[in-house]
This record gives sequence, C-alpha cells and structure tokens, in this order.
Amino acid sequence: MNETNDQIYELLTELLDQATEKDKENLVSLLTGVQKKQRDQYKTYLAGYMGIQSKLLNENTYESIIPNRELIHNPLDIVHGGITASLIDIAMGSLVHQTLSSNQAAVTSEMNIHYLAKGTGSEIRCRSEVVYKSDTRWVVKANVYRDDQKIIATATGNFMIIPRKA
Amino acid sequence: MNETNDQIYELLTELLDQATEKDKENLVSLLTGVQKKQRDQYKTYLAGYMGIQSKLLNENTYESIIPNRELIHNPLDIVHGGITASLIDIAMGSLVHQTLSSNQAAVTSEMNIHYLAKGTGSEIRCRSEVVYKSDTRWVVKANVYRDDQKIIATATGNFMIIPRKA
Amino acid sequence: MNETNDQIYELLTELLDQATEKDKENLVSLLTGVQKKQRDQYKTYLAGYMGIQSKLLNENTYESIIPNRELIHNPLDIVHGGITASLIDIAMGSLVHQTLSSNQAAVTSEMNIHYLAKGTGSEIRCRSEVVYKSDTRWVVKANVYRDDQKIIATATGNFMIIPRKA
Amino acid sequence: MNETNDQIYELLTELLDQATEKDKENLVSLLTGVQKKQRDQYKTYLAGYMGIQSKLLNENTYESIIPNRELIHNPLDIVHGGITASLIDIAMGSLVHQTLSSNQAAVTSEMNIHYLAKGTGSEIRCRSEVVYKSDTRWVVKANVYRDDQKIIATATGNFMIIPRKA
Repeated sequence: MNETNDQIYELLTELLDQATEKDKENLVSLLTGVQKKQRDQYKTYLAGYMGIQSKLLNENTYESIIPNRELIHNPLDIVHGGITASLIDIAMGSLVHQTLSSNQAAVTSEMNIHYLAKGTGSEIRCRSEVVYKSDTRWVVKANVYRDDQKIIATATGNFMIIPRKA
Repeated sequence: MNETNDQIYELLTELLDQATEKDKENLVSLLTGVQKKQRDQYKTYLAGYMGIQSKLLNENTYESIIPNRELIHNPLDIVHGGITASLIDIAMGSLVHQTLSSNQAAVTSEMNIHYLAKGTGSEIRCRSEVVYKSDTRWVVKANVYRDDQKIIATATGNFMIIPRKA
Repeated sequence: MNETNDQIYELLTELLDQATEKDKENLVSLLTGVQKKQRDQYKTYLAGYMGIQSKLLNENTYESIIPNRELIHNPLDIVHGGITASLIDIAMGSLVHQTLSSNQAAVTSEMNIHYLAKGTGSEIRCRSEVVYKSDTRWVVKANVYRDDQKIIATATGNFMIIPRKA
Repeated sequence: MNETNDQIYELLTELLDQATEKDKENLVSLLTGVQKKQRDQYKTYLAGYMGIQSKLLNENTYESIIPNRELIHNPLDIVHGGITASLIDIAMGSLVHQTLSSNQAAVTSEMNIHYLAKGTGSEIRCRSEVVYKSDTRWVVKANVYRDDQKIIATATGNFMIIPRKA
C-alpha cells in the first residue's frame, strides 16, 4: 500500500528533522532489529529491539548478551529493570526450549529477580542454568553481569512443560 | 548528518520492500513511539515501544495500560513475559515515584511475578497498589488483566528509597 | 516401654531443675501442643508447636492465628522468620485444601515472602486469599498482621494440584 | 514453683499414658532440644525443635543439617514446607551473621523458595552461599538436599544490614 508507505516516510522525515546524532543512532539500531525480525533472524520484535545474541554453552547453560544502548535505558540512563527481566526471561526460556521435543512447549509460571547493581558498560550478559527438571516442570536460575563482570541481577524461574499444539 | 539520514532512509526502503501490511502497521507503532520519546511524551524508548498510558487512580493505586500488538508478542503470538514484567516494573515504580520528594529516587531491588494466563485481547492493564511504605523501603503489589478482566499475572516488588543526585 | 518412660521423666526432671518460670511456661505450651497432636486436634507436631488456630472466613479467605510466645522467637526475641513462613505456608495450603475433592492434594511449589516489620504483640494473624485457580494450579496471597494491625509480612504462593494416593 | 512442676508432670503422665513408641521417641527429641536451648547450645527453641547442626564451610558457604523425624513432618509424612523454609532462613541468616561486626545485625527482608521434591530420607541438608554483598544489603542463595543428594528446594534471600542496639 503506497498510502501506508507514504505515512511511514513522512513520520520518519519528521523524526529526522528533530533528531540528534544520538537519536539517529537509536533509529538505526531499531530499524536493524526490525529488519532482522523480518528476515527471521529473530523470532520476536522484542529480541530485535534488544539486539539479543545467544548461545548454548553446554547442555545445562545458556548465555544471552545484549548491547547496552539508549533504547534499553530507564529515566536514570541505566539499563531498564524491565529489559533485565526480559533478558532473563528469554535466556531462561531459551535454555528450556533447547532440549524440549518438538511437540512440547515451556511456559514461564513464575520468575523472581533480585536487582543488585546498576546496568552500565558496553553490554549486558545473562547466564542461565538448570537447577531442576522433570517431565512437567523446570526450575532455572540466571545471573546477569556487566562487562566489568559485576553481577547486576540474580533470578530464578519456574517453567511448566505443556503439549505444543500441532 | 545527511550520511546517517541516507542510511536510515535506505534501511527503511529495504524494510518496506519486503513488508506485509502487518509489518507496516508495526513500523508505524514503532516510529510513533520514538517520536513521542523525542517529544518528551515518554521518558524512555521502552515506554514508547510499549505505548504505555498511565494514571494515578488514588494515592495508593496506579494503573498502566498498553495496547496488545505484535511488537510485544512472544513466539507463540501472545504477550511476551518480558513485556509483562516491564509493564509491572513501570507501573510499580511509577506509583512509588509519584509520592517521593524531588531529592529522592526509588530503585527496584526485587520483583516476583506469577504468570497466570495468556496475554491476549486488545489491551493489557496493570494495577499496582502500595502494601507497605517506610522512609527507606516500599513494597508494592500489582495485578495484570486482559480486557475480558481475566487476571494474567500477579506480582510483588520491593523498592529501596535512595537520595537523588542533584 | 517403661524404660523409655523413665528416660523421659529423667530428662524432664533435669530440665525442671534448671528451669525459670518462663522456661516452665514454655514447657507447658510445648507439651500441650504435643497432647493436641496426640488427640488429633492437630494434624502435625509443627501446628501443635505453633498453637495455630484457623478458620475459613469465606470461600476465598482463610485466617490462621498463633500466640506470640518465646517458643517461636528468633535470637532478637521477635517472631522467627521461619515461623512466619510456616504460618503462611499452613494458611495458604489449608485454604487450597478446603475446596479440593478427597482424591486431590495440593503441593506448594513456590513461596515468596516480603518481611515488613517486627513480629511483636500478643498474637500473629495470617489472612490468605485466592488469586487464581485452575484444575492444576492455585496461586494464593497472604498478609500477616500483629494485633496492633500492623502488617509484618506479605506473601504469594503457588500450589500444584496432584492426585491423592488412595 | 512446685505447682507448675506438678502441672508439667501431670501433663507428661497423661501424654505417656496414650503414647506409642513413636510418640515417646518424639518426646525425647523434643525435650532434648529444649534442654540444649536451656544450656545455650541453641539460641532459639525452634533450632532445638529442629535439631539443627551448622558449620561454616568457607567464607562464602554455610551448611545446616537437620534430622528428618516426625516432629517436622506435614500431614503427608514428608518434611513440612514451613520447616524447609525455616532451615533455609536459618542457614542464610547464619551465613550473613558470620561476617558481620558485633555492632551490626541482619534482617531478612525477602525470601523466595521453589519446592522441588519430597523431603524424605534420614536428614535434610541446606547449603547457602553469598551471591552479593554491600554495606547495607546481602543477597544469598540456598539449595536443600536429601541424603540421596536429590535437591528438594532452591531459594534466594535478601538481607538488610542494620545497626545492632547496644
């Protein structure tokens, strides 16, 4: 639809008119995240927004990293507690999903987070580990670190394993 | 900088080239959020991303609402647990900040969330209430509802009151 | 067995030899609790130890009260955090069990407690309420009060419903 | 006071009249705990009731063990969730108190427990470790195990450091 395209270009032009260099940098990050979602490099817009990169370190440990940029800051210019929570939820959930069979899904039923220090530095890293697993339930823990290795949050999560709809 | 502008327009053009109508709708939401952040209608990019609207219902109760749109979905196409956590953190923190004096700030030190039902429907509403307050610590609870009034999460949070830097 | 009886009387005599009036009062409380357990007025020794009294206020609310006595104090002579946790666990679990059918049981899978103020006064009262229930899971909240009505703890708990063995 | 002594002996005699061998065993455990409290081998009646034994394994790790006996069972004849919570609270709090100076005390402000498996076997062991410490706050984690090494609970706790009254 040309009409919507026109609206989007107009919105962007308005934005760029008032934008600082910092604002433009954020726009590049944002649109790059959207593009990766469009290209299926991310499964969700939120993962694209956060620019998350993850890998399985071993059968029981999963690591997820996000760049620390203004997009994820709270009003005090440090990492937003909601973003830290999202990072933890994604890291813990991904760890569980790694080993589920294709006809199962995991649902977060509970999450508990202690916030310990300010999220600053160039990136934020979350390492999640399995504490307990059964056929119906996983309990996972996660620690979140800055690039100076200071721990900024520690969390536990409970996941219920349910059948995945075909 | 024209150079960055060109890069942004190029990125957008690539995006729109492959975009479905749904994708374009998401882009409008996204850029509108950024614009509101730019215009100081939001204090953070995350609030703009979520399209959050809040109001103080009374001295002890605060309500925050977000539209349910693809931007905030998890891979199962329901509201992402990280977004629910962000909504709760914002609603609880805002309630606390409402009554702090200008030389104080509140920091989330702990948050506990029970996820109860799928986040579906047209909007997600979080109501937060004060459970306990002292000079150094607030404890707040929050419930999150769908527009069919079903509760989808219940949470508690602990906030430490600290001096705000001048 | 006379032998064991002799051992118990001997132990008691030793105790009473060194006992203050306060110690004797504690012994009376303790033995009265054991007797009520023996007579099936309590289902557990712990309930007898705590001297818990409970009632269902309505379908969704349950109240449990314990006398505040030295038996349940921590080294600072206020109610022990473990006793507050036990009171909460019992109050929440009893609420759930009230409405289960005879072939079901409930198991606590998670409990989260915020301790808010010192447990002092003559008794400690816990009121628990249902937040959410499904066929397989209940989420319950509880507040604990002193007799001056000050809230001393707030908690949430997650219960899984399982088949009860015949 | 002979009067109280008489009351206590009478109560005990009534109890023993109806007691099974198992009941008598519980009475011995119970009175032994009281005696140790009287002799200052325990700081609280609850610790005596539970028969807790603790040691500092290293600067950051503390281990507390309780015998598994009927005194601590729930109606399903496994370890009561309140006792597990008490064990965790004691193990975490003791770890913190180990390194505080004599003019400081620690107060539990929050505790979160995931119950993972039935408490059975001959003893229950809780190992607590420091996750984070500052001048005003400690965050500690704890795992609870059976003697077959199966994990039965995992927990985190938040402790606030306050001045100790002279």
